[in-house]
Formats: sequence, C-alpha cells, structure tokens
Amino acid sequence: MTDATAPLPAARPEGEVLVRDLSEEELLARVFPLLPAGDATLLGPGDDAAVVAAPDGRFVVTTDVLVEDRHFRRRWSSGDDVGARAAVQNLADVAAMGARPTALVVSLVVPGNVPAAWVEGLARGVAAACAPVGAAVVGGDLSGGDALVVAVTAHGDLEGRAPVVRSGARPGDVVAHAGVRGRSAAGLALLGAGAASPADGAPGASGPSAPYVAGYLRPQAPLAAGVAAGAAGATAMLDVSDGLLRDAGRMARASGVVVDLDAAALRPAVRGLEAAARALGLVGRAAADQALDWVLSGGEDHGLLATFPPSAALPAGFTPIGVVRERAATGPRVTLDGAVPAVGPGWDHFGG
Amino acid sequence: MTDATAPLPAARPEGEVLVRDLSEEELLARVFPLLPAGDATLLGPGDDAAVVAAPDGRFVVTTDVLVEDRHFRRRWSSGDDVGARAAVQNLADVAAMGARPTALVVSLVVPGNVPAAWVEGLARGVAAACAPVGAAVVGGDLSGGDALVVAVTAHGDLEGRAPVVRSGARPGDVVAHAGVRGRSAAGLALLGAGAASPADGAPGASGPSAPYVAGYLRPQAPLAAGVAAGAAGATAMLDVSDGLLRDAGRMARASGVVVDLDAAALRPAVRGLEAAARALGLVGRAAADQALDWVLSGGEDHGLLATFPPSAALPAGFTPIGVVRERAATGPRVTLDGAVPAVGPGWDHFGG
Repeated sequence: MTDATAPLPAARPEGEVLVRDLSEEELLARVFPLLPAGDATLLGPGDDAAVVAAPDGRFVVTTDVLVEDRHFRRRWSSGDDVGARAAVQNLADVAAMGARPTALVVSLVVPGNVPAAWVEGLARGVAAACAPVGAAVVGGDLSGGDALVVAVTAHGDLEGRAPVVRSGARPGDVVAHAGVRGRSAAGLALLGAGAASPADGAPGASGPSAPYVAGYLRPQAPLAAGVAAGAAGATAMLDVSDGLLRDAGRMARASGVVVDLDAAALRPAVRGLEAAARALGLVGRAAADQALDWVLSGGEDHGLLATFPPSAALPAGFTPIGVVRERAATGPRVTLDGAVPAVGPGWDHFGG
Repeated sequence: MTDATAPLPAARPEGEVLVRDLSEEELLARVFPLLPAGDATLLGPGDDAAVVAAPDGRFVVTTDVLVEDRHFRRRWSSGDDVGARAAVQNLADVAAMGARPTALVVSLVVPGNVPAAWVEGLARGVAAACAPVGAAVVGGDLSGGDALVVAVTAHGDLEGRAPVVRSGARPGDVVAHAGVRGRSAAGLALLGAGAASPADGAPGASGPSAPYVAGYLRPQAPLAAGVAAGAAGATAMLDVSDGLLRDAGRMARASGVVVDLDAAALRPAVRGLEAAARALGLVGRAAADQALDWVLSGGEDHGLLATFPPSAALPAGFTPIGVVRERAATGPRVTLDGAVPAVGPGWDHFGG
C-alpha cells in the first residue's frame, strides 16, 4: 500500500547502524567503554550484580524513569541530552539528602529502529553528568521494546552525616535555593513554540536562547551544594523537580510549617527569564508574569530547596529566598510575601 | 469506523477503576500499604531518596527490566505474577553473589487503561517474593506510557564475606545447582500451545500442569541457598536465567575452565518434565529429547549454578551436577559427559 501524497521517509544515512542490526552483546560492547568509573566501585559491570562501597554503613538510593514522548522527545533531545537528564535528576535526588553520589545502574528499553549511535550518546550523557561528582555506572539492563524508556537508580554516601529529610524545617529557619529556577520550563516553551531549536541549546551554543534551551535539554543540578548543605547543618532539603511552589509545598506539609518566599529575592531569576518570554511574543506585564510563572511553577530544573538554622552560614551556591514560619490556622502551606500566590501549583507527572 | 465482524471489546466490569481514573498520588496511596518493609530500611519511601543499612560497608546492586509482550503477556500473567517475577529475578542476582537481599526500588511505566487492581497486584507479588528473605521496597517511580514496563533494582548485604563472582571456578571443583531446571520453559510451552491455561498455575492449583505453569508464572529462586553457598565457600556462582548451558558457558569463559555436566545427574530433572512434553503430544524419544532440551536450554528458572572446592560440604538445596576441568585446547566451554551437547545454547533477550 503506497500513498503518493505521503512524505518520503527520511533516508537512512549510509552506514548507519540501528539497534536491531546488533546483538545485545555487540551493543553492550559499544556502550561499556563509554560508562563512567568511580572510586566507590568495588566490582563493576559483568557479573550478576555489582558491589559498591558504603563506608559509613548506609547508602542512599533513589530511582526515576524517563519515557519517550512523556519526558523527552527525540526530535528535540539527543541521546546525550537524555542520558544527562536521566542521570542528573537521580543525582539531584541523592544530593538532596545531603549525600555524595557514588554509583548508578541504568536500564534501557530501546526499539530496534533506534540508531546505535543514539544509545552510545545516552551513555556519554550519563557519563558527563556523573563526571563532576565522580559517580560510576556499575550495572544495567537492556531490552527491546516498542517505546524508549530509561530507568536510572542512583546511590550515595552520607559520609557519616544524618540524611537531610524534607520534614525538618523549623519556624525561623532561612529558606535557601541553589541552582536555576524556571530555565527548563522557558526552554521547553521556546522549543514548543518554534521560537528556538534544539541547536540553540547544543553544547557551546551562545545565542540568546542558549541558557533556556540548554537548561531544558541538559539541566545542571548543584550536586556539590547539596553535599555542602548536609555538612552545613541544613534542617530540610529537597530536589525542585516539579516547580518551586509545588516542591516547597511538599516541604511545608512534611514539616508542618509555612514556607514564606520573598518575592524580592526571586526577582533576579524572574528578570533573567523575561527575554525568553519576549521571544514568545509577550511584552511588558505579560512577559513579567510569564517569567514569574516559570520561576514559581516550572519543573525539571533540579535545583535544591533547603532550610538552614538562622545562625548557619549558607554554603556556596545557596541564596536566601524566604523564611520558615509557624504553621498557620489554615495549615502548612507556601506563601509569597505572606500571601497565597496567584499561580498554579506545578504539575503532575502522571496526567491524572 | 466500525467493523460488524470484529468481536465486541470486553465489557468494562462495573466499578472497575483504571489507572487513568486516578492521580499519581491516589494510585500511590493504594500501592504503598502493600509494599514490604524490612529490617535494613533506615528511611523508607516518601523523601527524595531512601536510606538503607549496609552493615559491612559495601552493598550489592543489580537491575532488571520486564517489558510487556517481551517478558510477559497480560493474558497469561496477573499483576501478582509479574510483580513476583520482576522481584525474584533481581533477588536471584543478589543471592548469586552470596549476598542476603535487603532492599528493592521499583519503577513502573503503566498505560492509563490498565486496571488499578493490576498495579495493586504487582505490589502484592513483589511483596510475596520479598517475604522469604525479609527484603523491603524502599522507593520507586511511576509514569504513564504506552507500554507496561517494570524496572526493579535490588540490593544485598554480603555480611562480611567476599562476593561470589562467576570467574572463580577452578579445575577439580564440584559443579552444583540449586532450584528447578526447565520448568519455566515447559510451562511457557504449555501455555503457548494451549495445552494449559494460566489458571492451571494459579496459587493452590494442583493439576498435572501446575508445577510447570506456576514455574513460568512465578519462578521460585533458592535465595537462602545462595547465601548459604557464599558462607560455605563457593568459588563461583551465577543465576541461571538464560538456560543451564548458556549460563554455565558464561561461568566457563569467565573462569577460563571447562564445566563438564553429568547427564546422569540431570536425569531426574529431565524425567520430571517428560509429562509436560507428553502433554504437548510428544511421545517416547521425542518427549525425552524435549525434556532434556528444557533442562539444558530453558531460561527464567532462576536457579543457582555454583562451584565448590571438592572438600566443601554442599549447602542445603544444592545437588552436584558436574565437575570443573582444565581448560581444553579448544578453550573454555561446557560439555555434557565430556562431549559438546547437541542442543542450542539458550536464548538472547535482545533478539539479535
């Protein structure tokens, strides 16, 4: 059955090797040399299981899954981008406990028509995200399937410290943030509107859209700041993956407090996004409102929200953005300059 | 567009709740109470990451992914079955290092049209598989998607012992096996031929097909035997997931030896599968050959293949099935009574 009006499929580049052209062993032989090694690895990939050092007698563990066309689109994100994102969002969860990331395992479900080079890129992206903290990939699994799925489990070392949970915020604590806010959402909006292309966020790109598009394609989590926050006595911390308001709300509920954000402290972040809003055709107040919405509700930046005793010196990378107050009669909640913010509460991964 | 000849879709049972009817939080609220707890859990689900005890300063970690219509079919396997299988194949990998399983994380990609009860069953199946060793589920992730995918990462405690790797087999060692051989493949063949139904392998079923069908739907790994093998000084061990010959070949190559299996020692397992072969219509020599093929090449039983010094007392659950010999001029390999077996080498998860 042919349809003369249908566009021709893109020609397969000469010599391109697809996943279905390789056996599992052949594909793994391409990927293994690209995976990062690290000091915590006592026994790496190749046996039934790996062995990882846990010097203080505990380990931190978290897992996150990325699904094509839910969490990434292949026409926007390269294999490198998806690998970096999958690793970073797990590494950020480890750092949000105040732990040093040590080891990852990565499972990949990959359709046969995906280029092998895409999978190699994924491994390089994971390695790039692991490099700053010296985390290793110690194992994984590979399966065929109709949809691309990347599942990462990350582990970390608390180095003798108590884990920094989200329920420890106390009235009077300083609320601080490390990392960027709203850049990923702004980059996604620019790509979605056709106002920027993935090339605008490629490594080394320096155009006006670069910070936003790169912030969406390959978010950078402040991993070292998380470890430093644990050492500096942070009372509560979490990874901001679903938007500042939504994640601050989780901290407020878990701690039974009010997290009051300071609009003035957020203003530099808002100003930094107004150019992206203008690139979407918004002007004046509309551009400022859009930028504020990205800062308060944009997800996937993987910054860290933490609270510190008023006497603590904030570690490098953190800036104060609010204060913890006694739980109000209305219950634990997030406020902006003392009032309920007039924007949505972030988003639900699941649709619902 | 309608087709009068097409069968009507099955009516949705009254009151049935689908995944798409629930928010992520509502679905998690149904699943959380079903997840197993365990002694190693220092901080369980609900924060950015969990914290697990690793008393000897190391942990074992492995991951495996199951994809619908690749690794299971929903018309054969209930949620309970898939949960049990996903957990067991990871727990077996931990036990194959001689480690005691302690903690799992589970990621699930689930289409909206899957009943919520199926997901609850998955959690119950994971819990059932964890119960014998007291392992906990300490975290996970949940995403929508077009295809069902279950990714499990399992962890274990070596209790101060060296990990039992697959490369340690030495000439003169006894080759021993714990668990069943070929049952899963026989059960799959019976289901595939319509000679048995999933109900024949349901919990409590006692018909002639029950051991095979249940062996496919919910394989039982000899987890305690793996820990005991580590304590008893096993020199090499691996989980038999891809068939006895194929996995023994991995051990032979990793150790640089010949693994010589004793046909007489395998005969009880072969005889125990002849009834399944006859249920497929095979008779006489053909039935015996099919049964032998299942024993040698059938995957997914998750038994343990180990080698022990000749002086070691085999731990409970292990039976001797061969001996390790010097690497031959033809290189490391598996032999059956000294000769190359005349059956295929098991299967490749990936197609290839």
